[in-house]
Amino acid sequence: MATATHTTPDRVTFERSPDSYKHWKLAFDGPVATLSMDVQEDAGLSPDYRLKLNSYDLGVDIELADAIQRIRFEHPEVHCVLITSMKERIFCAGANIFMLRGSTHNWKVNFCKFTNETRLAMEDASEHSGITFIAALNGICAGGGYELALACDEIILVDDGNSAVSLPETPLLGVLPGTGGLTRVVDKRKVRRDLADFFGTIAEGVRGKRAVEWRLVDAVYPTSQFKERVAKRARELAAQSDRPASGSGIVLGPLNAQVSDDALKYSAVTLDIDRARRVATLTVSAPTDEQPDTPEGILAAGDRFWPLRAFRELDDAVLHLRLNEPLIGTVVLKTVGDASAVLAVDDTLLRHTDHWAVREIIHFMKRTLKRVDLTSRSFFALIEPGSCFAGSLFELAIAADRSYMKDDPDEPNAIALSGMNSGPLPMSNGLTRLQTRFLGTPERVDEVLAEKEPFDAQAAMDAGLVSFAPDELDWDDEVRLAVEGRAAFSPDALTGMEANLRFAGPETMETKIFGRLTAWQNWIFIRPNAVGEQGALTAYGTQKRPEFDFNRT
Amino acid sequence: MATATHTTPDRVTFERSPDSYKHWKLAFDGPVATLSMDVQEDAGLSPDYRLKLNSYDLGVDIELADAIQRIRFEHPEVHCVLITSMKERIFCAGANIFMLRGSTHNWKVNFCKFTNETRLAMEDASEHSGITFIAALNGICAGGGYELALACDEIILVDDGNSAVSLPETPLLGVLPGTGGLTRVVDKRKVRRDLADFFGTIAEGVRGKRAVEWRLVDAVYPTSQFKERVAKRARELAAQSDRPASGSGIVLGPLNAQVSDDALKYSAVTLDIDRARRVATLTVSAPTDEQPDTPEGILAAGDRFWPLRAFRELDDAVLHLRLNEPLIGTVVLKTVGDASAVLAVDDTLLRHTDHWAVREIIHFMKRTLKRVDLTSRSFFALIEPGSCFAGSLFELAIAADRSYMKDDPDEPNAIALSGMNSGPLPMSNGLTRLQTRFLGTPERVDEVLAEKEPFDAQAAMDAGLVSFAPDELDWDDEVRLAVEGRAAFSPDALTGMEANLRFAGPETMETKIFGRLTAWQNWIFIRPNAVGEQGALTAYGTQKRPEFDFNRT
Repeated sequence: MATATHTTPDRVTFERSPDSYKHWKLAFDGPVATLSMDVQEDAGLSPDYRLKLNSYDLGVDIELADAIQRIRFEHPEVHCVLITSMKERIFCAGANIFMLRGSTHNWKVNFCKFTNETRLAMEDASEHSGITFIAALNGICAGGGYELALACDEIILVDDGNSAVSLPETPLLGVLPGTGGLTRVVDKRKVRRDLADFFGTIAEGVRGKRAVEWRLVDAVYPTSQFKERVAKRARELAAQSDRPASGSGIVLGPLNAQVSDDALKYSAVTLDIDRARRVATLTVSAPTDEQPDTPEGILAAGDRFWPLRAFRELDDAVLHLRLNEPLIGTVVLKTVGDASAVLAVDDTLLRHTDHWAVREIIHFMKRTLKRVDLTSRSFFALIEPGSCFAGSLFELAIAADRSYMKDDPDEPNAIALSGMNSGPLPMSNGLTRLQTRFLGTPERVDEVLAEKEPFDAQAAMDAGLVSFAPDELDWDDEVRLAVEGRAAFSPDALTGMEANLRFAGPETMETKIFGRLTAWQNWIFIRPNAVGEQGALTAYGTQKRPEFDFNRT
Repeated sequence: MATATHTTPDRVTFERSPDSYKHWKLAFDGPVATLSMDVQEDAGLSPDYRLKLNSYDLGVDIELADAIQRIRFEHPEVHCVLITSMKERIFCAGANIFMLRGSTHNWKVNFCKFTNETRLAMEDASEHSGITFIAALNGICAGGGYELALACDEIILVDDGNSAVSLPETPLLGVLPGTGGLTRVVDKRKVRRDLADFFGTIAEGVRGKRAVEWRLVDAVYPTSQFKERVAKRARELAAQSDRPASGSGIVLGPLNAQVSDDALKYSAVTLDIDRARRVATLTVSAPTDEQPDTPEGILAAGDRFWPLRAFRELDDAVLHLRLNEPLIGTVVLKTVGDASAVLAVDDTLLRHTDHWAVREIIHFMKRTLKRVDLTSRSFFALIEPGSCFAGSLFELAIAADRSYMKDDPDEPNAIALSGMNSGPLPMSNGLTRLQTRFLGTPERVDEVLAEKEPFDAQAAMDAGLVSFAPDELDWDDEVRLAVEGRAAFSPDALTGMEANLRFAGPETMETKIFGRLTAWQNWIFIRPNAVGEQGALTAYGTQKRPEFDFNRT
């Protein structure tokens, strides 16, 4: 269970570009983009499994995430995305079982987390960016394949007497659908729970009219009409978008990080790894060069515009930590530079939220901060003289599990808020981080937002904006003890504690997926009934039948 | 991990009465009852651990649950309950660690589930029954002790320079507080999440003014004032109740079940156990004798009034299944008798909801049905000729994961709704079972409730009230295959699937506790970092220090 039986890459990278996609074809036809799955069996992240029948591993999903991201930024003219398959009679068989079986627990958990984030990014594009998604199921659609379809706005299934949608995890594998399937079936598509129960136990799935009647898909069409009806529906949905009809987008160039054994250095982000202490330091720098302040200027700056650049780098660094540095337990968050430069960029963004590109940048910042919230490492923000925890960067301080602000009269040190703290960057629970923080004193939210002056350490403590404000004499010891103490605790208990404390307040489909469903999935993923010698995941594809310990909790 | 290292009773019983309490003293003073914890070290359910420092096992909590229940029914004059301890300088040390360490996983999970239900029953009494709770913390209050306090309306802590509240699970034991602690800290008491994070990592806890400032307790008083201030506050809260000032209650007599190896027979409920097939059949019978239809008549009938009697028996049977029959995976729900008799009782209840005793009976029915929802066994309702799935008993059919209704023109078979299906018996998610069922077609709720005639099998299928309606030719085979098929699946996957499908719609503190927190706790409870040879739970109280696998998920 604890050790992988197949080789994994030394370092997973998350940057992709369409010309190097191995598993997807991206085609454009006016306002409709078609993203076709065509998984190369022998091009998995590890050579030890074959990605048959459009089954996928993390590498396949990294390309999908890249494609969605590029459509949003590089193709403003795309208003609807068709997700389909190039393989005959097969849409997608779901996550590759042999990959799952041979993976460590933390790989499985992070694989599921990333795929969940990719699906949620599709729903985010639909809700906020005028891009709708249609799953055009041209063949069998099982497990994670159906979970991908569930993330689309509409699901159209071919009615060929054979193609079905299914969640065979429980009957075949003894695990749960790991990418939001159960939640989306009953909460998003609102399938009746008894029908969902039946559906979740039949490996062969449901097809044809019954799939429509049970709300599992939106429409079925015979093979002869399928493509035409799908295309028609895509044009209809595309016509409802508020995205521009034409014009150039923002091309997402390579990040060009300098990679060494213990650091990743980007243009505005640095990640320093201290494996001996199991601590990483993630530092974000304020812009140092002049930033555009009009939509035209932003389009001209493209991916060099600071917030897009810094948050892309931050996103990449967080993903790197999750997959490539599993032993790092604590992440110290720092910022450095001119706070007024950060606030000026915030101001530019807030003045142009109705421009499609600004909208995309803000939603991307939001998704990156959600990735931080959902990363199972402890985050401590250190607010020191010379830092710039202001506006959108202050979100990092309140995304952290705790913050420490140095209170030294000889060294000015301040934090500041902006309109970016009052709504544009909500958490998965639908609240802003300030609202979540001040759940018990909701009047505080408006009070701190009304304050136009920066907060020094004492003011920040009084306002409840930081956790602790040690003075210059205590600072070093207090911070050191906090970081060292954290590193000594059970990482599992910390993961569970953080997952429960970070998301107070309302639950959403998103928090349900990450909180409830993921937790149950994690539990099942380490139970002997799934991964033990006689477990169902172990037995799958062999001649052996699983043998269960039938004790119920 | 899988086998208990200490002996547990062959059969846990759930009936208690105050004269036989071993661990609590229940005292009455007008409108204030005082429930004092005084755990007998050597009177645990197993002789293999000692319940030191007011630490508790399931037996202690069964008495607490009984006491709360009796206060509600037997003492209408009680308007406020003080929860405190008889031990000097110790309120409660939480769940007994040695008990946890020696228990099977399913025992631990069910122990936590029951204690959670007991705490939620206190909050239910506060919200709905005019009984407030004060935790009078006369000494150290750790872990589950603080979780008990969190379930009270107010927490008053003695300020003696030593007594603190704490959740030491993460730093000392490598597990999570298992009885709602983390959720209640940030969601109920709305402690700021960074302070909660700090609090959750310091074994010594927080005391004095800081505990008040951080919202962990409501007040602190020096030892000299403590008793007096607590008593004063109890009288103030009691004065706000809408319970009767005096009068006799309903005494809850013994259930007198006939117990044999494979059955429990009560007056209106029978539980038949088929261990070879891992199936139990739970049958509820309609009233056969005349039932009172006035509050006076109900008080005179007392615990013989059918709904109270039948649901007490149902509650006991479900608890028996959970703790004593862990191998039973599927529960077949049946009813038998005169549906009109059930509907007549429903009508009586609904006409007198403003009477305190009727109110108690309805809320108890609600809590019992929630216990069914939260039981990790598969429930299939079989609706056959002669059954009485009507009104409050129809809730069982839609609490079930599926229902099968026999469609035989030669044998009349009907279901019926009543006002009990439209609000008085909500699920943990705050919705009625009909609302949850029809989340996708909310207009259906009022449509089916407006129907005054019973539904035969076809009408029930058309209305979406049952899952399947096999005809008389298919009935035996279809039901048999469904039950046999269910028994063959991984019990863990079923548990996770059911926990996710049963609670669509809104989340509440209650569903957060059972969905999110419990799932994480279950995961952590089987991780080697907690229960492995070098795990923190294993090492606790020994000379050994835990050794962790520091890989983070």
